[in-house]
Amino acid sequence: MDRIVECVPNFSEGRRANIVDEIVNAMTMRGVKILDREMDANHNRSVITLAGDPDTMEQAVFRGIACAARLIDLDTHRGEHPRIGATDVVPFVPIRGVTMDECIALARRLGERVARELEIPVYLYERAATRPERRDLAYIRRGEYEVLKQEIATNPDREPDFGPKRIGKAGATVIGARPFLIAYNVNLATSDAHIAKEIARVVRERGGGLPSVKALGFELKDRGIVQVSMNLTDFNVTGLLKAFETVRAEAERRGVTVLESEIVGLVPLEALTQLAQHALKLPVLHTSQVIEMKLFGE
Amino acid sequence: MDRIVECVPNFSEGRRANIVDEIVNAMTMRGVKILDREMDANHNRSVITLAGDPDTMEQAVFRGIACAARLIDLDTHRGEHPRIGATDVVPFVPIRGVTMDECIALARRLGERVARELEIPVYLYERAATRPERRDLAYIRRGEYEVLKQEIATNPDREPDFGPKRIGKAGATVIGARPFLIAYNVNLATSDAHIAKEIARVVRERGGGLPSVKALGFELKDRGIVQVSMNLTDFNVTGLLKAFETVRAEAERRGVTVLESEIVGLVPLEALTQLAQHALKLPVLHTSQVIEMKLFGE
Repeated sequence: MDRIVECVPNFSEGRRANIVDEIVNAMTMRGVKILDREMDANHNRSVITLAGDPDTMEQAVFRGIACAARLIDLDTHRGEHPRIGATDVVPFVPIRGVTMDECIALARRLGERVARELEIPVYLYERAATRPERRDLAYIRRGEYEVLKQEIATNPDREPDFGPKRIGKAGATVIGARPFLIAYNVNLATSDAHIAKEIARVVRERGGGLPSVKALGFELKDRGIVQVSMNLTDFNVTGLLKAFETVRAEAERRGVTVLESEIVGLVPLEALTQLAQHALKLPVLHTSQVIEMKLFGE
Repeated sequence: MDRIVECVPNFSEGRRANIVDEIVNAMTMRGVKILDREMDANHNRSVITLAGDPDTMEQAVFRGIACAARLIDLDTHRGEHPRIGATDVVPFVPIRGVTMDECIALARRLGERVARELEIPVYLYERAATRPERRDLAYIRRGEYEVLKQEIATNPDREPDFGPKRIGKAGATVIGARPFLIAYNVNLATSDAHIAKEIARVVRERGGGLPSVKALGFELKDRGIVQVSMNLTDFNVTGLLKAFETVRAEAERRGVTVLESEIVGLVPLEALTQLAQHALKLPVLHTSQVIEMKLFGE
């Protein structure tokens, strides 16, 4: 397994476990590992994380999309989370030995096949987008299934990248490629939520701060502290150490100390070797120097 | 492979590649990975690095020792490096899902078997030592094969932990357990070797500095700079970041800046998660949060 792509398809079913089971089973293949599976009943949505070599992943995810199209009916689907399809969104993420360009090509191949064999309209998004405005998932999904159904045939802005300009009960699917996203929070020793919100505004890209960083300020009421909650959408642009040190400097300017930070969920090894490079002034630290990679990764 | 032990046996043959091949072949088993193999003709010694689950490793290393005993004759062996046996020293290193105590038990089991089946005297060293002075490999190996041969029968200080108080052409073998050793260098922007030597003296354990750190100061003549070259003998006691920051502080006190640092060879993933914990004030970062471990390590 020297070439690994991750995929995090979102399916519009978060209540009937047997339906999600069937979709997961459809995607279970030799050479593919199911890493995580989350169902949300309020959202009526499930999020599956799987990984494997690019060719096998293409096949596995196609089978998941075909299965969801068979089992999920958007005409009767209700949930809090916006959606346009039975398989709503399918991001591919390069993990190891695979470039972003290869993930973009994979997204396009899969999209073309989904459109051709399943007659589902497909929109390409994020790094795979064919129009600048389609980098943004929310833009593609505006009005959700119900509005898209009306507009797809007549509105040129809603013309799919692949497939028919009409929509069935399986809706439409958004497929694309993006870097690995690190969910990273820094907790501050103050109960003043304004400070967290202010720092979040300063550090996030949208406020002219750190590129590829999204940030929000929150109060953690039960602990009487506040949190700057970040998404590092491309750790090669802004990594963990830079994010931490920027938040710490902003906090110190306001007389507040950093209590601790936390990485939520998974992190790629490369984010840690990159951190070590910065912290130790290492010109380079290859992931192949990590002994576990010698043992497992070859 | 959720339980992994590394072993770095040293064999007293560094010139005849076919002999080393035979020993490596003897240790090659399903479930064991040969990570590295180094021969040194001047030392007339080879160092093999292998890893796998503890039970398989015990069997593999036993086979290597038996093979070396058959093929290497200490009576005719000459080389620059001190040695007492055909298989000279065998350290076991816990890598993943294995405690130091388990590695000590493994060293003892293997030692008992080598003594019983091969009639080779075995000394336990480092964490597996049964006498404080035997923690030190140099102490056990004093006078080398030639002196040990004379003294083993009569000197109670040289009584082996297992096996006969007499020595054949395969010599004696030292077996033990120790933490993973990280070779770590920090390069300083000065040509004054005294500064590197002085900092090395201050930071190393022997000089009252950082525990579990050995250090030497060197000149890198071709580059016109100097290096503080360290062995971190237990990164859980003193890790990479602490070593780096201590050297940097000592250099700055002397008006010298750190150019860069380098990790020589392999590093365990845990040394990187530990570094991230310190640099980011993370209360915890599990190696299982590293996505590659989810993919390979289960």
